[in-house]
Amino acid sequence: MNQFPSAHLLAEIRSRGPLVHSITNTVVTNFTANVLLAVGAAPAMVDIVGESGMFAGIANGLLVNLGTPTPEQRLAAVEAAEGATQAQTPWVLDPVAVGALPIRTELARKLADMHPTVIRGNASEILGLAGASAGGRGVDATDSTGSAAEVAMQLAREKETVVAVSGPEDFITDGDRVIRVKNGDAMLTKVTGGGCALGAVIAAFVAVRSTAIENQDVSVLDAVAAAHVVYGVCAEIAVGDGTTRVGPGTFAVNFLDALHAVTPEEVSAKERTFETTQLQVSK
Amino acid sequence: MNQFPSAHLLAEIRSRGPLVHSITNTVVTNFTANVLLAVGAAPAMVDIVGESGMFAGIANGLLVNLGTPTPEQRLAAVEAAEGATQAQTPWVLDPVAVGALPIRTELARKLADMHPTVIRGNASEILGLAGASAGGRGVDATDSTGSAAEVAMQLAREKETVVAVSGPEDFITDGDRVIRVKNGDAMLTKVTGGGCALGAVIAAFVAVRSTAIENQDVSVLDAVAAAHVVYGVCAEIAVGDGTTRVGPGTFAVNFLDALHAVTPEEVSAKERTFETTQLQVSK
Amino acid sequence: MNQFPSAHLLAEIRSRGPLVHSITNTVVTNFTANVLLAVGAAPAMVDIVGESGMFAGIANGLLVNLGTPTPEQRLAAVEAAEGATQAQTPWVLDPVAVGALPIRTELARKLADMHPTVIRGNASEILGLAGASAGGRGVDATDSTGSAAEVAMQLAREKETVVAVSGPEDFITDGDRVIRVKNGDAMLTKVTGGGCALGAVIAAFVAVRSTAIENQDVSVLDAVAAAHVVYGVCAEIAVGDGTTRVGPGTFAVNFLDALHAVTPEEVSAKERTFETTQLQVSK
Repeated sequence: MNQFPSAHLLAEIRSRGPLVHSITNTVVTNFTANVLLAVGAAPAMVDIVGESGMFAGIANGLLVNLGTPTPEQRLAAVEAAEGATQAQTPWVLDPVAVGALPIRTELARKLADMHPTVIRGNASEILGLAGASAGGRGVDATDSTGSAAEVAMQLAREKETVVAVSGPEDFITDGDRVIRVKNGDAMLTKVTGGGCALGAVIAAFVAVRSTAIENQDVSVLDAVAAAHVVYGVCAEIAVGDGTTRVGPGTFAVNFLDALHAVTPEEVSAKERTFETTQLQVSK
Repeated sequence: MNQFPSAHLLAEIRSRGPLVHSITNTVVTNFTANVLLAVGAAPAMVDIVGESGMFAGIANGLLVNLGTPTPEQRLAAVEAAEGATQAQTPWVLDPVAVGALPIRTELARKLADMHPTVIRGNASEILGLAGASAGGRGVDATDSTGSAAEVAMQLAREKETVVAVSGPEDFITDGDRVIRVKNGDAMLTKVTGGGCALGAVIAAFVAVRSTAIENQDVSVLDAVAAAHVVYGVCAEIAVGDGTTRVGPGTFAVNFLDALHAVTPEEVSAKERTFETTQLQVSK
Repeated sequence: MNQFPSAHLLAEIRSRGPLVHSITNTVVTNFTANVLLAVGAAPAMVDIVGESGMFAGIANGLLVNLGTPTPEQRLAAVEAAEGATQAQTPWVLDPVAVGALPIRTELARKLADMHPTVIRGNASEILGLAGASAGGRGVDATDSTGSAAEVAMQLAREKETVVAVSGPEDFITDGDRVIRVKNGDAMLTKVTGGGCALGAVIAAFVAVRSTAIENQDVSVLDAVAAAHVVYGVCAEIAVGDGTTRVGPGTFAVNFLDALHAVTPEEVSAKERTFETTQLQVSK
């Protein structure tokens, strides 16, 4: 059995119910809130100027997702990032479709300089944020996770953050250590918000990382990996054992049920992560 | 069998299909519309300036929910409230997360002075609206229903409205009579919009209260209680008999199915309401 | 077996995964995206000024749905229509609730003059767009499909577009030919977005009509009919064989599963379309 604290942090979320402030896109707000509720966290979306910054101080974690960034939401996102920083609320930046689209790309780069605790995206989005690619087509990755690995490590070092690249195998790094998560199922790409809601779950896991295990803090890197593990394990449970073909409608229902029902023991039993040796990246 | 007209009003909704204009938050629009359709009403969301007021006159009921109040929606909400008042369309105010957050709190107090037919919220929101508490954390109640009872009665008298406080036991008052509804299930708090969609259902029930039973109008208080009963009964049906553990994904599906299938007879058989003696509240 | 290429275009969508840019209302964004994913297309919603036009050039198809048109989205819709025209991206206009509500009616008429590839609505909306009716109440049709047939043909000729009128029997015309589609189920009217998501599916089908069959393009008219057929067949599958009563919650889940699982052979077997003789419409 490996040493990642996925099971422990899941139990912490269940007992502490972290409040996750989610500034996210109109396509996935509902699914994101239901995913947070199912896993044991409490969602709230406060994306207007004059409230988002204050609420980032009340919340235990913050997600800033740039999927449908209206002018009001763009201002509210910056306000929330400032509020989170002042209140030391951990926050996650999800640069949806960044790269090809100019307004969100400029905003994402500004936010990336405001010390997010975590940056999460698919390979094309991470490359797009780093200026190393024009980004994918919309929300789909057109670059492989492997192609983003070095850029992700470089980005993590430059921004002093943890970068998570989602894909068939997730790649998570703080610029030094690298954790790969093999849990998950491709069916997550057939339900809208499969990636976006993960950003909110990451915020929930990072929110409870303090003194989670015998008064020792879990590192941000390990907490982010734990979120990916629990999320991926629940996707595997939702797909089932393969005796029945599960469609995307049933999968989404099963996935919420699994997030609610999965036990820490099941997570530990199904976890498939490994920590790789440090990649050599020129500074 | 008790005297509350839950079963009768449910039949009225099914036969008349009231059009419920729902100005609500981006997290729950979809669920709210599906709940209204399932119970037999017709949803429509018109939340832009220049249309919302006119549409409040066309609709049979109006919900104004302040979950994600953009500047445009704030103006449209006031326009809709004015349009509803002019056209005598009954309307429900749901002061989501009011108390701690300044912009929606100011707006909610303005709207509460515009003669809503019903004000619905959890205990923290009702206390927050009345200025008696800083409100909960986000959408969660941190105050008990009991603690809000006297404030709710006072608020109902001052605003000449019906106030409904949602909780494990719902508390509904017109400032004089009090009806408590014990139907429901905690699983409603595990699906986002469990409370918000109830606000829309209340609007549907109040919309059909006129001449519902032998040419006698049902009172607003009784119609609001009826909405809580039908909603709560369907939550109980959705949870099932306890032989299988129902997760939040399955619960939401079952709940919509139950709203569609529940018969007036089932509602009557499962209704658990009681009217309490008037609390003594100083004026 | 008839000659409509529903089965062929479905296979094309599965293999090519057209990117459908969906500017749509906040009530149905999530369902629309999930419907597109289930059928094999890729959704993306880019509804801000400064990005929507550019993205309409990247996408393979565009939907402009006027359900909740905020000021920002109204500008973005026009920008997207211009971008689509420049890039020759096919696009669909869905004039939700047009007729009675002035702001969207003015915008819909402006967009209808910008050469949409397809206009899709219920009978009241088509009549409202053409100025022949005050429109329905909200999103519901209060006029029959038959009553809109001549107006639809006239509109198709005037705007040089294909007009699709949804109803118990769908009426689709390019102003010359008429295809009627009898597939579908009334349960689609009990799930919000049942009509709106069809607009996005139409965009996906039109996006893959080129060189679909032996290097021969499918006409826009036939591609629109094919979308209605596949959509309707999946609704029939979702309702089941009638041995169990299917509620709207279960129906929505089944429908997404069916869109994912349905085979071209099933579509061909269940297709119920017929092409009528040309109606005589005075110019």
